[in-house]
Formats: sequence, C-alpha cells, structure tokens
Amino acid sequence: MQKILDTVDAQLETSLERLFAFLRIPSISAQPSHAGDCRKAAEWARDALAGMGFSARLSETSGLPGVIATHHEAGPNAPHVLFYGHYDVQPADPLELWNSDPFDPQLVDGPRGKRIVARGAVDDKGQVVSFMEAVRAHLAVNGKLPVRLTVLLEGEEENGSPSLAELLSNERETLAADFVYVADTNMWDFATPAITTSLRGLAAIEVRLHGPKRDLHSGLFGGIALNPIQALVSILGELKDDTGRIQIPGFYDGITPVSPAQAENWAGLGFDARAFLGDVGLSTPAGEADQLPLAQLWARPTAELNGIYGGYQGEGSKTVIPAHATAKLTFRLVAGQDPEKVLKHFERFVTERLPKDARVEFKRGGAAPGFSLSPDAPFLRAATAALAAEFNKPAALIGSGASIPVVEAFKTHLGLDTLLVGFGLDDDCIHSPNEKFEMACFHRGTRAHARMLTAFAAQP
Amino acid sequence: MQKILDTVDAQLETSLERLFAFLRIPSISAQPSHAGDCRKAAEWARDALAGMGFSARLSETSGLPGVIATHHEAGPNAPHVLFYGHYDVQPADPLELWNSDPFDPQLVDGPRGKRIVARGAVDDKGQVVSFMEAVRAHLAVNGKLPVRLTVLLEGEEENGSPSLAELLSNERETLAADFVYVADTNMWDFATPAITTSLRGLAAIEVRLHGPKRDLHSGLFGGIALNPIQALVSILGELKDDTGRIQIPGFYDGITPVSPAQAENWAGLGFDARAFLGDVGLSTPAGEADQLPLAQLWARPTAELNGIYGGYQGEGSKTVIPAHATAKLTFRLVAGQDPEKVLKHFERFVTERLPKDARVEFKRGGAAPGFSLSPDAPFLRAATAALAAEFNKPAALIGSGASIPVVEAFKTHLGLDTLLVGFGLDDDCIHSPNEKFEMACFHRGTRAHARMLTAFAAQP
Repeated sequence: MQKILDTVDAQLETSLERLFAFLRIPSISAQPSHAGDCRKAAEWARDALAGMGFSARLSETSGLPGVIATHHEAGPNAPHVLFYGHYDVQPADPLELWNSDPFDPQLVDGPRGKRIVARGAVDDKGQVVSFMEAVRAHLAVNGKLPVRLTVLLEGEEENGSPSLAELLSNERETLAADFVYVADTNMWDFATPAITTSLRGLAAIEVRLHGPKRDLHSGLFGGIALNPIQALVSILGELKDDTGRIQIPGFYDGITPVSPAQAENWAGLGFDARAFLGDVGLSTPAGEADQLPLAQLWARPTAELNGIYGGYQGEGSKTVIPAHATAKLTFRLVAGQDPEKVLKHFERFVTERLPKDARVEFKRGGAAPGFSLSPDAPFLRAATAALAAEFNKPAALIGSGASIPVVEAFKTHLGLDTLLVGFGLDDDCIHSPNEKFEMACFHRGTRAHARMLTAFAAQP
Repeated sequence: MQKILDTVDAQLETSLERLFAFLRIPSISAQPSHAGDCRKAAEWARDALAGMGFSARLSETSGLPGVIATHHEAGPNAPHVLFYGHYDVQPADPLELWNSDPFDPQLVDGPRGKRIVARGAVDDKGQVVSFMEAVRAHLAVNGKLPVRLTVLLEGEEENGSPSLAELLSNERETLAADFVYVADTNMWDFATPAITTSLRGLAAIEVRLHGPKRDLHSGLFGGIALNPIQALVSILGELKDDTGRIQIPGFYDGITPVSPAQAENWAGLGFDARAFLGDVGLSTPAGEADQLPLAQLWARPTAELNGIYGGYQGEGSKTVIPAHATAKLTFRLVAGQDPEKVLKHFERFVTERLPKDARVEFKRGGAAPGFSLSPDAPFLRAATAALAAEFNKPAALIGSGASIPVVEAFKTHLGLDTLLVGFGLDDDCIHSPNEKFEMACFHRGTRAHARMLTAFAAQP
C-alpha cells in the first residue's frame, strides 16, 4: 500500500496537469451551444481511461453520451465496483464575479494552502480525476487493480439527468456491479472525512377540504355552517404533539432507531444547531424533542406543510365562509418507510377527523423512499477503515435531509446501494463564482481513494 | 282604536294611490343621473307629511337630502318616537326581467291575493307609506297623535348611507327621541309578524405568524426548522373544542344566555335547520352543540376563519418551509361582548401558544358591538302586544346574524335603541326584478302601525 501512496504523492504535479486539461473544456450541459464541448469532455475522459488500460467507450443516449470504462483483470472473484461521476459542469455566470476565467484553471493561495480554482474544480471533474489518479497509482505499482472496476461518467447531471434512466437501462449488463461508489459529496470539515450513509425520500400530497357548496355570508350563516378552513386547520393542527412527534398512526412504522454507534459518531461532530438555525433567523430545533438535532435533519421523517390557502386573501377583511380550503404537504421519509403507506396513513388520519358535512379530496404527488446504508455493509466498513487510516480519525457517517436523484436511480434501475464519499468542503462555492477545490483535499482524496480500492478487495 | 282601524280600511284605495305616486318617482340613489328624481321623492314625502299637519322640511347634506318632519302636539309627557325609513330605491336593472315597468306600479294577482309590483314596492317606499297611512288614520279620527313623532327619511340607504352620520350629527337636537322605530324588515312568514330584537356585531383581525427569516428548503431544514404554517394551524386548530365552543378565555364574557321565553318563542317558529343548510349543501348545524340552531345564528358569537394563506399555492408541490403564514378572522359578536376585549383575548390566545422562534403580527380591522333589545323595553312590550292583537298570534322575536348599519349609526350618534318592525316577506324580491309587496301585508301593516302608535303611548 505504501508504494501506491508514494506513487500518488510523486505523480501529484502531473495529476494536476491532467485535471487542468479536463477543466479547460467548458462542458456546460444546460447550454445547447456547449454540446460539442460536452462531447469533447466525454472523449477526454474516455481517452484518459483507455490510456490507463480500461476498455472505454461512449454510450450514446437521446441526450449527451455517457462514458463507460471497464477494468476487470482482477477476476470474477474480486468485488465489482461501479464508480460514478459526471463530466458536465454548471454554467459559469455571472462571469464578472470570477477572479479568473472559469475555464482557465488556476492554482491560488488560500488559508489552507493552494487551491484549484475553476468551474468544475470540485463538482465534479476534480473529484473524478482524484479517483482516476488513485487508479493510475494502483496500476503503476501492480499492473492491475484489486477490484473489478466499471467507471460510469454522466454528462447531464447538472441539467436534471434527463437521459440517466435510458443510460442505465441500455447498460444494465455492463453496470451489474456489487455497489456504486460516488465521489460527488463533501467532507465534514477540512480534517474530517465523511461518508453519506442516509438520504431522506419524499412523498407529496394535496388535501382539499370542501364544506358548503358555495361561499357563504358569515353574517347570515356564521355559527351554523361548517367552515372548511377551520375544519382543515383543526385536523392539521393535530399532526404533531407538543414534543414534535407526528401523530399519524403507522407513520413511523418500519423505521430503525438511530443506533448508539451512529449517535456517538454524530455527537462527535460538534454540530452547532444554534449557529445552523441562527443563519436563518431561528434558534431552537423544532423537531422531535427526544432526537438529536442532526437526527431531526438526517434520520427522522417529517410532515411538512409547504402551502395552505382558502377564502379571502386580499387587503382588509371579507366576511366569507369559503366553500373549500387546501393544504399542500410533503413528507421527508427515511429508510424503512413505505411512501404509499405513509400517504394512505395520512389520508386515513384526515378522513377519520372529518366533521359532518365535510368532504375531502386528495391529490397525491411524487413518492420516493428514503435510503440508508446498513452499518454492516462490507464496502462501508472497508471505506470507513481506509478513511480512518488516511486521516487518522474516524469518518463522519452523515446523512442528508434531501434526496440525491442518482442514488434513487441506481436503486431503482440497477438495484444497487451507493457509497457516497467525497472530498469537497462546504465553502467550495459549487454552482457559484470562484468554485475551488483545496489542493490538500484533492491530494488526500486521491490517497484515500487508493486505500479504499485496496480495502474493498480485502472485505469478504 | 276600532275607529282608527276602520279608517285605515276605508282609506285603503286612496292609500294605494298615494303609494303609487311615490313609486312612480325613480329615486335611484346609486345613479347620479337620478339625483333630481331623488330630490323629487324627498319633496313628495315632505309635502305629504306637511299635508297631514307635520312641520316638514328637507335637511341638506353633502349628498342627498334627508326629510325631517315633526308632529309634537301630543305634548312633552308623551313618548317621543323617531320613525326612520328611506325614500331611495335600488337600480332596476336588469330591466328585461321585469314583467312591467319598474316605475309604473301595478296591482297583480298572486297566490296571496293582490300584490303591488314596482321597484321600491316594499323596500322601502311601501313600508314608509304604510306607516304614514297609519298616522293619517290617527289624525283623521283624533286630530292628533298619541305620541310625539319625528319622521326621518334618508335618501342614500341603498348606496351605503355616505351622509347619514352627517345628517344625524346636524339634526341631533331634533332627533333626540326615546327610541327609533324602523320599518324596513320582514315578517317571519305571511301569518306571523316579527320584531328583530338582536343583531350581531363584528370584530376583524389578521394574524401573521413569522418563522425563519426566509423561505427554506425542506430537505436541508425540514425537521429542525420551525414551520410557520404548522404553528399557525396548530394554534387556530384549538379555537373550538369538539362541541363547537370557542376556547378563547374571556371570549363569552358579558353575554346573557338565551332566556327560556326567547327559546320558547324561537322553538315555536318551526325553523328547519336541515332545509336552511340543505340549500347550501350542508345538513348539520356546526355551532355550539348545546345551542338551538337559531341561537347559533342569532344569539351566539362566532370565531370565523375567513381566509388563510402561506407558502406554495400553485400546481404540484414545492418543498418549501415558508417564512410566514397568515390567517384572517372575523368574530360575530352579540350584546354584552366588548369588541376591543375580544380582539385582545384572541391576541393573548395566540401569543400564549406561540412556539419558540415564532413571532406574531396582528392587524386589527373594524369593530362594532352586537345589539340586543331588552325584553323589558316598554316600546318592545307595546309593539309585541299591538302585533299580537292585529295578527292573533305572538310576534316572532327574531335576530339577525349580521349587523344593520343604521341601527349602529343610531346607537353611535344618538345613543338610541332601535325597534325593527316590518311587513315584508322573504319572497318579496327586494333588490331584484319584479319586487313586490303583498297588498295584505301593506294593509295589515298599516293597521299594526296604527295599533303600535296607540300602544307606545299607553306604556309607562
């Protein structure tokens, strides 16, 4: 292993040269005028992988092509890893806020040493090249890889991935790996690596409560006539108890509580909920009182009123009892919850509370389950050990309150779990002017990738 | 008395001729082109009253003039009655739906005998003339009236009474009576006279609940961040308990419960709540479960959500936690409730329930107290007895769930209570094409007015 790490260190300058070449291609997927540049970036990656001994090609779609490259000399008994990244970048506007040309990468001094500044420096070309350089070091030392490796680079990630499902479907056999390994996320902080082990899903629903068949005058009917706004708020007002616990029967079915090990890991992160909330004018975690703030964000489901309307909404007052009132809700879901069942439980919760003469209409929206890696997954244990060895401290096992579409896509189309490890930082300005990737993060990321490739192979 | 009633009967044909002359004047106050006609109607009424021996004049305002006429020969010890009516009418559009010219009054056969058809037939020229003919009969028999009588006819009632306050203020001394006697309301049904003895007041307020200082992404913040829609509905959901009782402490302070006599009177009216609600698609009284349906409409206050809004209200879903949410409420108030205190109690109710980090903003709207005649008021007892004598059954002592602006104005500007007795029917099509006044209602109304004038004088 030490030889491989030494090789990573020794090749750092040429690694950067290769990254810079990739960054100079303005592969902006959202802008049709850059379609040719996107294809150039795909070809650059294909050629770079082919140059390392991969069997590499473009995989055409109705949109921009994917890059597919395989290196399977490790043999059928070695684990099969599917690496995912993307070669496209966000638009660079507003250009006047950049200190240098976004497509002329620079090494700039910063408080943590040199940093690479360019559009795509970290999202995602820098992370992709960081991984590729780890592969290069393995091959340079051993002539082969410890795992069967398939690389998939997408060209439309920054544009909503319109062709990803098509690409996964077309390449289902090639992509039939043991797990997906994605390098597109952040470290916890400059000193602490992170693995994102859980994502929340989503279920959306609109509820409209009907009362009288037309708007009524509140003088002539007030007191005797059902008010659908009152009926709606009375029902939705019961969604949570005083401790923030959601009161829908069955809502929490299937959820695994946060394990003591996970809770300990999070407690060690020093998350400052007061500062996090202070940025948006709040101070106190508003979720379940018996849950850690980070659990409220990452590990616990929500019932969120995203919108409500009914009756008169103009200036002053109007003495109306409206015919109906409407609320829009989304539920953030965690692993174990069935989105369809959650919506059904909610519908029953509302229906059981309907007052006489009220009628309810539901309109279901999108639904996707939450995701969580088992703490016993071999590739997770391998990654955790490799990161600890490189950084001399345990990796943060973090969650995300929102979903990541590609993770859902891999689960849906390939049935695969995803390991999310990345070396970006929160202040990297992704999608913004002066996007950067700390040179130290690039370098230690490459070393960590190299260690992880070895560690994956050592697992049962 | 019998002589006076016989005179009413004998003069019926000429009474109708006088009413028809009044109805031929198209005194539409809302249409400036009819300002001259309005003045003509005022002059017609002034001259008619002067012709009966009143001291009569126009009282100019910045709008249309009022008619003021006094007949005080009854002497300083007789009760002083202020009669109010209006000489203006609604526009007649749409003309094509009338069966005859709205300003060419007709006697038409109907299921209850002859009916007078014209714009203003009942609202309010027919009711005014009905009263004037009762006065005429008294004067014809006795040469004087049993009470001191002041007549006030307004010319802008159908146009929102913009100059009424000015008129009342200008004529404060002339109008300093014992009570106001208004003939502009309906009977309970064709066989049953009615006195409107209570009106509900109103207090309006808007409540805006603020949470985070900007809209938040519900994936990144959901679970840990306060949702102001949820906070608002949780608070407003507690406004009423399962029995419909309003939970604001102090809300019911000062209210006199419905008396057994009043309840008995209402029970005798045969009000069909199911039919009343059925017309608007409902079936079950939604107010306080221990109150009669008519009490829910007339005698009990309400807390009504007239509007609510917050967050996303478009198609589909948006995963937002909004910065604020707003509700608009009005309270219908009954006699004894202080509007300012009700609003203060509500504000405390909300404020005490605010979760941490929530901030609330109130915007108060208009406020007017409820009104109710004491069942012991001498003029009410007098009117009740006179109506019972004429109709051979007790009058319905009804309420109105809404306010009547002139009643508020008399209370505010003159400090006077109002007796509301009228002889219209619910199917008279006021404000609509083919407005009518049943000849029998006009006739018996005149007889009842004649009896009431006598009865007022007989009270202590």
